Amino acid sequence: MTFEISKSGDEDEIRRQIDHFVTAFCTKDLDLMMSLYAPEMVSYDIVPPLQDAGRDTYKNVWEKTFTLFGDSIDIDIRDLRISTGGNVAFSHNLLRIHGTKANGQKIDYWERLTLCFRKIDNNWLVVHEHVSVPVDFENGKAMVDLKP
Amino acid sequence: MTFEISKSGDEDEIRRQIDHFVTAFCTKDLDLMMSLYAPEMVSYDIVPPLQDAGRDTYKNVWEKTFTLFGDSIDIDIRDLRISTGGNVAFSHNLLRIHGTKANGQKIDYWERLTLCFRKIDNNWLVVHEHVSVPVDFENGKAMVDLKP
Repeated sequence: MTFEISKSGDEDEIRRQIDHFVTAFCTKDLDLMMSLYAPEMVSYDIVPPLQDAGRDTYKNVWEKTFTLFGDSIDIDIRDLRISTGGNVAFSHNLLRIHGTKANGQKIDYWERLTLCFRKIDNNWLVVHEHVSVPVDFENGKAMVDLKP
Repeated sequence: MTFEISKSGDEDEIRRQIDHFVTAFCTKDLDLMMSLYAPEMVSYDIVPPLQDAGRDTYKNVWEKTFTLFGDSIDIDIRDLRISTGGNVAFSHNLLRIHGTKANGQKIDYWERLTLCFRKIDNNWLVVHEHVSVPVDFENGKAMVDLKP
């Protein structure tokens, strides 16, 4: 993982939330994952639909995702940038997912992750998440073979 | 377009920047578009590469995009949400692009847009942009036929 130098306590707390995100993903810890989100969060996920509104809706998405991934998924974070101001913050980074899915399929691809936070009851919670890969409009394919 | 009720002057200013984004896109106004970005901005665009770092790099992307689009492109904004705090803000919305490309091809699809801002010299500038459509991992296709 490549992290920038910390500049503030808020940045440290955002970084800790991103660490939790990675840990929750790799260990399939649904409770830890859901603890990161505000109730009214809006997700633009890498898979359809266009958006998921609300933590309860998105919980179902993570449950389904965890059934698809096996027990040997690893994640690398790269080019992380964090901006904080008052009770609002955002982060963005490239994220590599590699390992074996529950069906035995090997996966290894880079995606882009943007997280937008609000400080609610002294806790930085994700109110918006955007995950994607680029698209080749010539052939309509998602580009899962790009490397930074 | 569907906009939320304004809650602050900062929200009004962010909304104005998004209006400028739409106007610049539809009128292919490169100067207006580039006036929205901070020099050190990072873009996760709908097309490759994984990321574009820096306004000058991203200017080339917009120049190329404008050559692809015809003179009758229209944009609808939907489900816009804006959060502001101190000198940091973010917005997200669904965005419909419809019209005719320069090669005569009709287009009409919804994408997701996240903009992250910093207030620099009293001006809200985009330091991060993330644009995407979801992916169908079953067939590897980008999903450009989804509707909200």
